[in-house]
Amino acid sequence: MPYYAFLNGKMLPSEKAFVHISDLGLLRGYAVFDYLRTYNRKPFLLQQHLARFEHSARELNLELPCSGKQIEGIISRLLSKSAIRTDCGIRLLLTGGRSADGITISRPTFAITTEKLIFPPESAYRKGVKLITREFQRESPYIKTTNYKNAIRLNPEKLRQKAHEILYCSGGKILETTRNNFFVFKGDTLITPGANILHGITRSFVLSFAKGVFRVEERDVLVSELPGVSEAFITGTTRKILPVVKVNDQAIGEGKPGKNSLHLLKLFEEKLAER
Amino acid sequence: MPYYAFLNGKMLPSEKAFVHISDLGLLRGYAVFDYLRTYNRKPFLLQQHLARFEHSARELNLELPCSGKQIEGIISRLLSKSAIRTDCGIRLLLTGGRSADGITISRPTFAITTEKLIFPPESAYRKGVKLITREFQRESPYIKTTNYKNAIRLNPEKLRQKAHEILYCSGGKILETTRNNFFVFKGDTLITPGANILHGITRSFVLSFAKGVFRVEERDVLVSELPGVSEAFITGTTRKILPVVKVNDQAIGEGKPGKNSLHLLKLFEEKLAER
Repeated sequence: MPYYAFLNGKMLPSEKAFVHISDLGLLRGYAVFDYLRTYNRKPFLLQQHLARFEHSARELNLELPCSGKQIEGIISRLLSKSAIRTDCGIRLLLTGGRSADGITISRPTFAITTEKLIFPPESAYRKGVKLITREFQRESPYIKTTNYKNAIRLNPEKLRQKAHEILYCSGGKILETTRNNFFVFKGDTLITPGANILHGITRSFVLSFAKGVFRVEERDVLVSELPGVSEAFITGTTRKILPVVKVNDQAIGEGKPGKNSLHLLKLFEEKLAER
Repeated sequence: MPYYAFLNGKMLPSEKAFVHISDLGLLRGYAVFDYLRTYNRKPFLLQQHLARFEHSARELNLELPCSGKQIEGIISRLLSKSAIRTDCGIRLLLTGGRSADGITISRPTFAITTEKLIFPPESAYRKGVKLITREFQRESPYIKTTNYKNAIRLNPEKLRQKAHEILYCSGGKILETTRNNFFVFKGDTLITPGANILHGITRSFVLSFAKGVFRVEERDVLVSELPGVSEAFITGTTRKILPVVKVNDQAIGEGKPGKNSLHLLKLFEEKLAER
């Protein structure tokens, strides 16, 4: 069975979901989105994703044509219509819609798509991954816009260097990867940047239960601190908690997934099992 | 007769030009474009626009599926097919295309659309226009990407303040407006920023004939210089040379279109008549 999509009020197979070429989302990059996944075919952290999506929409003066309750209903219908046997990704997309003058918002285009989940290989969790750094500060870090130009542009370089992700840094501070948040451990203290980044939903989820186990600091993390950290990991919807063992040529801690990171991953899995 | 578009090898009425929702141009803002116009139904400065478009494509690792010569041919067919009696705008658009993983470029989407031209009101040339400044440096100023998020987001504020355009400034330097280049006159010296801006095709065209008449300086222009300039104007495909008489609350020169700016506009019109 194919994946289904909801587009401007209609339910249709994703293959048939097309947007007019004059849409501001395409012509002007004027769009916000959010992305979540299901576990056991139920949307995970849906309310949190909806809240962030609504925030992004407000920041771009885009009116959502559906309430949160209605979106929940649409997602539920999409999941049963798609008859997907496995878990899937769910993307919410809201654009400026078609515009007569290329600058004025009219009726936003609103879509919800269900998508195949793409995971890191299992070995990434066993061995940990490498990141490479690039100097970059996203334009509007607190808004989840569709601007991933830099991520796609740097992708070939990332593959060349056998890195799992690009770690954006700015003025000596570590920010986030192109699609994930970044954490380090110094001993039993968990530290993660809090400013000038997109606040990931997985990031918040991890912080919520990490606080009961470790000392937690949300503060700037300097690139120059990396030689002194004992562990590092990234968080994201399809990553959960993924250990980082190298940043550029700098080994992190002992160069293998750290015990605190793995403990948090275990707690993550337990939280999922409790649902 | 409707406007026509060329999309991935097909000629079709613009109303029927749709792009799949998984296109990286829409999902990730991964796209470059260029925009030109016709005069007397002939594309104006086409070679220059093509050269810039090809540069933008290269910078984003996007392969153009057509040669410049082929694009010329397509535009010519579009113009005759559209049977447009008046002049029109021509937009070239190249995106990352559909992507299986949302990050890897596959086969780019390439479109050429013909569009209704939208001009400033005639009174804007007679009275001059007001700009308002905003602190903003575009991410990749030398590449004509589709990222106009800031322009659209600030549009309501621009209208509220009865401004014609937003003038981006960064660290005390004047850069460009959301869609135009900025020039000032100090007496008979024409000055325009040259760094960290998109190099407009109209800007180059104006510079090419201004150099024979005025002393020309391409250099940083400071916001603090504005009280001392005698004239200002902006350039762009649909603006030609549009006098600026106010920036925020600062009157420019005598607060009316300047004689040197109007002289350049006259030369512009003469160049057009010569074609």
